[in-house]
Amino acid sequence: MTAPAPDTDSFAGRDLISMRDYKRDELLAFLDEATFYEGYQEPLLKGKVLASLFFEPSTRTQLSFASAMQRLGGSTLGFSDAKLSSMAKGESLSDTIRVVESYCDIILIRHPREGAARLASESTSLPVINAGDGTNQHPSQTLLDLYTVRQTRGRLDNLKIAFIGDLKYSRTVHSLIETLTHFDNEIFLVSPQSLRTPPEFIEELDARGTVYTEDEDFFSIASDVDIIYTTRIQQERFPDPIEYEKVKNAYRIDREAIERVGADVTLMHPLPRLNEISTDLDDYPGAAYFDQAKNGVTVRKAILSLLLGASR
Amino acid sequence: MTAPAPDTDSFAGRDLISMRDYKRDELLAFLDEATFYEGYQEPLLKGKVLASLFFEPSTRTQLSFASAMQRLGGSTLGFSDAKLSSMAKGESLSDTIRVVESYCDIILIRHPREGAARLASESTSLPVINAGDGTNQHPSQTLLDLYTVRQTRGRLDNLKIAFIGDLKYSRTVHSLIETLTHFDNEIFLVSPQSLRTPPEFIEELDARGTVYTEDEDFFSIASDVDIIYTTRIQQERFPDPIEYEKVKNAYRIDREAIERVGADVTLMHPLPRLNEISTDLDDYPGAAYFDQAKNGVTVRKAILSLLLGASR
Amino acid sequence: MTAPAPDTDSFAGRDLISMRDYKRDELLAFLDEATFYEGYQEPLLKGKVLASLFFEPSTRTQLSFASAMQRLGGSTLGFSDAKLSSMAKGESLSDTIRVVESYCDIILIRHPREGAARLASESTSLPVINAGDGTNQHPSQTLLDLYTVRQTRGRLDNLKIAFIGDLKYSRTVHSLIETLTHFDNEIFLVSPQSLRTPPEFIEELDARGTVYTEDEDFFSIASDVDIIYTTRIQQERFPDPIEYEKVKNAYRIDREAIERVGADVTLMHPLPRLNEISTDLDDYPGAAYFDQAKNGVTVRKAILSLLLGASR
Repeated sequence: MTAPAPDTDSFAGRDLISMRDYKRDELLAFLDEATFYEGYQEPLLKGKVLASLFFEPSTRTQLSFASAMQRLGGSTLGFSDAKLSSMAKGESLSDTIRVVESYCDIILIRHPREGAARLASESTSLPVINAGDGTNQHPSQTLLDLYTVRQTRGRLDNLKIAFIGDLKYSRTVHSLIETLTHFDNEIFLVSPQSLRTPPEFIEELDARGTVYTEDEDFFSIASDVDIIYTTRIQQERFPDPIEYEKVKNAYRIDREAIERVGADVTLMHPLPRLNEISTDLDDYPGAAYFDQAKNGVTVRKAILSLLLGASR
Repeated sequence: MTAPAPDTDSFAGRDLISMRDYKRDELLAFLDEATFYEGYQEPLLKGKVLASLFFEPSTRTQLSFASAMQRLGGSTLGFSDAKLSSMAKGESLSDTIRVVESYCDIILIRHPREGAARLASESTSLPVINAGDGTNQHPSQTLLDLYTVRQTRGRLDNLKIAFIGDLKYSRTVHSLIETLTHFDNEIFLVSPQSLRTPPEFIEELDARGTVYTEDEDFFSIASDVDIIYTTRIQQERFPDPIEYEKVKNAYRIDREAIERVGADVTLMHPLPRLNEISTDLDDYPGAAYFDQAKNGVTVRKAILSLLLGASR
Repeated sequence: MTAPAPDTDSFAGRDLISMRDYKRDELLAFLDEATFYEGYQEPLLKGKVLASLFFEPSTRTQLSFASAMQRLGGSTLGFSDAKLSSMAKGESLSDTIRVVESYCDIILIRHPREGAARLASESTSLPVINAGDGTNQHPSQTLLDLYTVRQTRGRLDNLKIAFIGDLKYSRTVHSLIETLTHFDNEIFLVSPQSLRTPPEFIEELDARGTVYTEDEDFFSIASDVDIIYTTRIQQERFPDPIEYEKVKNAYRIDREAIERVGADVTLMHPLPRLNEISTDLDDYPGAAYFDQAKNGVTVRKAILSLLLGASR
């Protein structure tokens, strides 16, 4: 596949708040651009400063963006937990952003409240990246997931993709399902009854004409499935610990389970994993979860460069 | 006003602990130098390291200095809260500084105890910047306030300047009032009875022959006032919550209040603001509080370069 | 002593987990290489990223490595306390390392559990540096101690070296004693009865034929001692506060004590010091404890460059 030259200029100065703000062509342009950043380390962003405002901790996302910035010669400042920060102590988020915009060229924000990133973006003319706002959006995660799908399967269409585990609360899964409706795939939704995909996402699959099934049984997925995307099931979601134990084991993926569903499956997980994926799969050729982490830096280099209007 | 070429060499290696250590001419040299740093991003401080030691959190000041350093190509290391730091756990401040001087070229210190920055400066030959020591001094804040006064009014003399709110506990106000005695202005001090300016500052105004008034009524200030500098009134200062509510509202500035005192007022606030200034004033032409934050980075670039003896 | 040109290539890609992994010749090559880094500030490590993973705080070590990295043009990312980090919340250390290796070129780890650094090194092909794992090893501290010994005495053999204080729990002392068995010295071990050197280290001295004495009396050490290495005695080690007070004062070193043991002693301490060394010794010519801190940056520049295979 030859990548069409993306019109990278059109991204300069834009925000990345929600996947819904970007059209299919723009998503592809993002992914195409990202391929150039694999291992790329030129000081494209020299002199540029990223303000990294984490109103709740998310070390992985914070370090991944810091790495992307540093690999391109830029630098970061900010805080990693609002409790440790004297900022925003009673101050409005809008005021905080208007102060911080004096310090930087681009703002990354993680906030426990839905809509916080959007509000931040309305308070400044600088580009704002949403690093997670409550249970709402985490678009750089979705882009790195798409990037990994395309990297491992060579395409974003005509795939059989299974989502396994907690489909009710996982922001990562919701955003990826929603974004995949731009493409033509078959979706398998496998979860315990109490953790089914919320109706609004099911309605969207219907509206877009995406083919999907819902089931509780892991082995309901097609034997020629291309991608299994699994997530952590959190004990806190279950009032009854016995119920939790039962569910936890039903969705645990090990080598035996993988071998039953087919020889050539890509196995994805946003990490951290507890025991949803057995470590005996870590050297399985299709295990892509650590590649996702690696792709996170690559994709975030592209995001930062594009929004900052830094030409390669 | 043509700026006299400041003798920038004379600042190299000096500390910035208290505004009292700098003469009127030196203050002006600082401000003149700072004008060159608006938007300046050359790597003047490449290879230089700032140690940023925050024994109590002050995210705003910390990030502003980090931005200034990074904009000039330097880097920072340090900690943002002594509770998180293994340093100085029973260790004398002097020992901590003698260790830290191995790591850096210049030291920034914030400490809850008065005199800590001075003590630090006596323990090292490196330049030390006071980022706030208890209720004592915070000189880079005073310099950015002066810079903003001159930027908005074109001069530092012949101004009518009103200070509103908590004049008893505000370190920012004390330092600015004291520094303004180098110049020839008329001062209005407006506060509740229980939060009046401490006698030592009143005595200094008297000694320097500065014209001033003290009043409880916001509308006692001249109708042709040039600057209104307002501060946060903290609820903790009032044993009686009803008393606090009364006072809080009496000193709240909104568009109506501003229009009564004159058409061309510069409105300053050190931030964060709670509701001392109504957000309906944010697009008022004289609202300078976010400019203060922006000028903070500019002035701090000048401070770092001058003390480090880095020639432009 | 003319330093043999160390075969610096052989260090590229190696880990620094334990002093036991390095032979005498390799230790000397490290120290020789380090001499070139005194005051050296060229951007040898430009574009390189150090991940600094502190699962327990150790501000001094963290800042010293950050300084070394920044002095050579590299940058750092990471966290300074696992409690503040969302990483490794239930995640295996191995998974954490496999994610972090995507962000960086070299990993520095401090962890409360013995063996954690070794485990980390087995999870990645990147070089891993142990910045302290429980009571086990802290090899960069040992290297800077050796560097300081050689810098002050001109050699690593034929020295009389006294260790004073808590010889039971001090990881720093254990590692230095053990490493000194590569060389030919006379060792004096002075501690309260309850804080004697553990038998395994005594056995190692015996096995290597190192000459040593054990005593409770500070003045048992030779009057022509070359080095006194003293450590903090922690009150928590003593059930009886009166016992602690007695011991604490018996091993406190002041000018009078130093003058009794000889005119030309090098006095070392890993810092922080409480009152084990009187501040009236700070201007004593042999006081080397702040030099140790300074040498820490020098030695760490060498460690980072060597393991990263960055040629001078």
